[in-house]
Amino acid sequence: MSVIMHTVHVDLAERSYPVYIGRDLLAEPQLLLQHLRGREVAIVSNTTVAPLYMPRLRAALGEGRRVTEIILPDGEQHKTLATLEHILECLLADRHSRSTTLIALGGGVVGDVAGFAAACYQRGVDFIQVPTTLLAQVDSSVGGKTAVNHVLGKNMIGAFHQPQAVLIDTNSLHTLPARELSAGLAEVIKYGLICDADFYLWLQQVMPRLIGRDDSALAEAIERSCALKAAVVAADEREGGLRAILNLGHTFGHAIETAQGYGSWLHGEAVAVGMLLAVHLSAARGWVDPCEIDVLSSLLRQAQLPLDIPAGMSPKLFLDLMGRDKKVVDGRLRLVLLRSIGEACLVDDVSASELEGLLQGAVARVKSAG
Amino acid sequence: MSVIMHTVHVDLAERSYPVYIGRDLLAEPQLLLQHLRGREVAIVSNTTVAPLYMPRLRAALGEGRRVTEIILPDGEQHKTLATLEHILECLLADRHSRSTTLIALGGGVVGDVAGFAAACYQRGVDFIQVPTTLLAQVDSSVGGKTAVNHVLGKNMIGAFHQPQAVLIDTNSLHTLPARELSAGLAEVIKYGLICDADFYLWLQQVMPRLIGRDDSALAEAIERSCALKAAVVAADEREGGLRAILNLGHTFGHAIETAQGYGSWLHGEAVAVGMLLAVHLSAARGWVDPCEIDVLSSLLRQAQLPLDIPAGMSPKLFLDLMGRDKKVVDGRLRLVLLRSIGEACLVDDVSASELEGLLQGAVARVKSAG
Repeated sequence: MSVIMHTVHVDLAERSYPVYIGRDLLAEPQLLLQHLRGREVAIVSNTTVAPLYMPRLRAALGEGRRVTEIILPDGEQHKTLATLEHILECLLADRHSRSTTLIALGGGVVGDVAGFAAACYQRGVDFIQVPTTLLAQVDSSVGGKTAVNHVLGKNMIGAFHQPQAVLIDTNSLHTLPARELSAGLAEVIKYGLICDADFYLWLQQVMPRLIGRDDSALAEAIERSCALKAAVVAADEREGGLRAILNLGHTFGHAIETAQGYGSWLHGEAVAVGMLLAVHLSAARGWVDPCEIDVLSSLLRQAQLPLDIPAGMSPKLFLDLMGRDKKVVDGRLRLVLLRSIGEACLVDDVSASELEGLLQGAVARVKSAG
Repeated sequence: MSVIMHTVHVDLAERSYPVYIGRDLLAEPQLLLQHLRGREVAIVSNTTVAPLYMPRLRAALGEGRRVTEIILPDGEQHKTLATLEHILECLLADRHSRSTTLIALGGGVVGDVAGFAAACYQRGVDFIQVPTTLLAQVDSSVGGKTAVNHVLGKNMIGAFHQPQAVLIDTNSLHTLPARELSAGLAEVIKYGLICDADFYLWLQQVMPRLIGRDDSALAEAIERSCALKAAVVAADEREGGLRAILNLGHTFGHAIETAQGYGSWLHGEAVAVGMLLAVHLSAARGWVDPCEIDVLSSLLRQAQLPLDIPAGMSPKLFLDLMGRDKKVVDGRLRLVLLRSIGEACLVDDVSASELEGLLQGAVARVKSAG
């Protein structure tokens, strides 16, 4: 193979799998073919991504296969049980057997709902991820989480279902809208904050190159992010404890997404604001230096990400929505905070008044900015 | 504990669990309580079973818990994605967390859909089965298969999700309609046919006592059935090979259920007819003595089960519906046959003409009976 490729191994015993990262990987059929065990393939994509990359993927699959294309409408608002049902119906109508392989070609929404379909169809079939957004590449394609949303909560219905392989063709980032590139960078920044201070420093240096879509900087950021996530997931596949640190900023972020309706704020944008809230709280507890608030604010700004909660979102609404989070255990809210930059911890002793103070501060910043 | 209780251990490494079998087990709170890890419980039942057993189950749970009751309409026609969604919505509306436990109180339909809900809710929560029909006690409560039906195929959407424990209170069999008792006996007979010739002989002797609801005979039949199924499942949790023998008669049976619409024929009734077809085919291949057709016919008749396929169901319709079965691998139909009584095998070399001959014979028997 003549392409430059990095491989991250996700180590999960008999469910281990490789993540291939590089340019033009879709033009390398053998990467895909070695992971297909039957003749049947179903490709799930969406109306935005399919016109751009479906022909290349079909070409890589070669002749002699029975391929079903399932094209979803684009957007987080379609990550629902109804879409799941549509995929399952297409598989049934085309009589896919247990030896079929589902391939998700698209961003996090396509990967999450197609992965859940692969988990449910005939109680589980093979699955390959071809993530085409930065967010999906560094986050949802590693770790086996699949899910759909419900009006009462995000990612509340789903399964753990590990893929056979993940194929990240960095070419796809050149067609990605700027806002989605930024949303992906929020998750990249997260890995630095929770478990790698050196990576966090490196990001502060290369952010202009990342925003400028420099290929080698992007490939390195993706590889390091996937490797950090893979290490966390390998240590805790089913989120018994450690894995929860990957949710830095997510409890606040999910509340924002739910309040605004899915699809209005991008996931990464909500997480960016959530991470900054978590750093505020960590600084208020004396765990990180208050100047880290400015460092992160500056980095998020360079990454063209929002810093403030949505105008008009009250502390009460936040608290109400956060009470529905999956991280609530026996009525206690668990939050990911930072002990220091590069070291996250899970706490369950955040008091209502501590949260209210934090959120009132956030509301005040919105008002002063607006 | 003063009750007489049998325990079958289902051995699946860290997913192992006990099946408790005995009279009045619902009156023994500690059996349940030792398997609950949180304060939250959701009980899924149906309109037939809940009035009979819900008060006893609630009493066993004691005070100090947050309990949500989710009562489904009764019947296989409700084993759908819509019902799954209803259960998940109730859990979300009552803000059940990841540490909740779902308890299925009812027959196979309740167990399958509640188990699937437990598998999907927040990507998996604890699950306890309290099966109240003989069919659920000897079949669906052991092995972790959960599913819902689709108009294009039965049990096509689901997950493997092992329970924390199964509690079989044989008292529940005294309120079971006669037709459902018979349907359960079809699966009991199946265990003898596929893996235990001695058990098959014993069933021929005790069938009048089983139909007469003799407690000790029923308890023994349940225990031996669960132990046989547990051994098969332990050897092959995710149906790589051996576990498929549990489907004796099911490929034919599912075709009957699909053709008639779910809920018209009971699952066990369809399986009874399917097993007899499988024995016909095994005899035609010279693997079992043709007299075994009469032995099984007589046993099914004693168990008050049907022997013939539905009137008017053509061989073509059978073949068409069987082509959609989960046991089709890369286009080849796999069928469970008998090498001898007590020894099943999986074959993939049944020719179309062999199947047509079998089904034309079945049609002829319906006509001569009608």
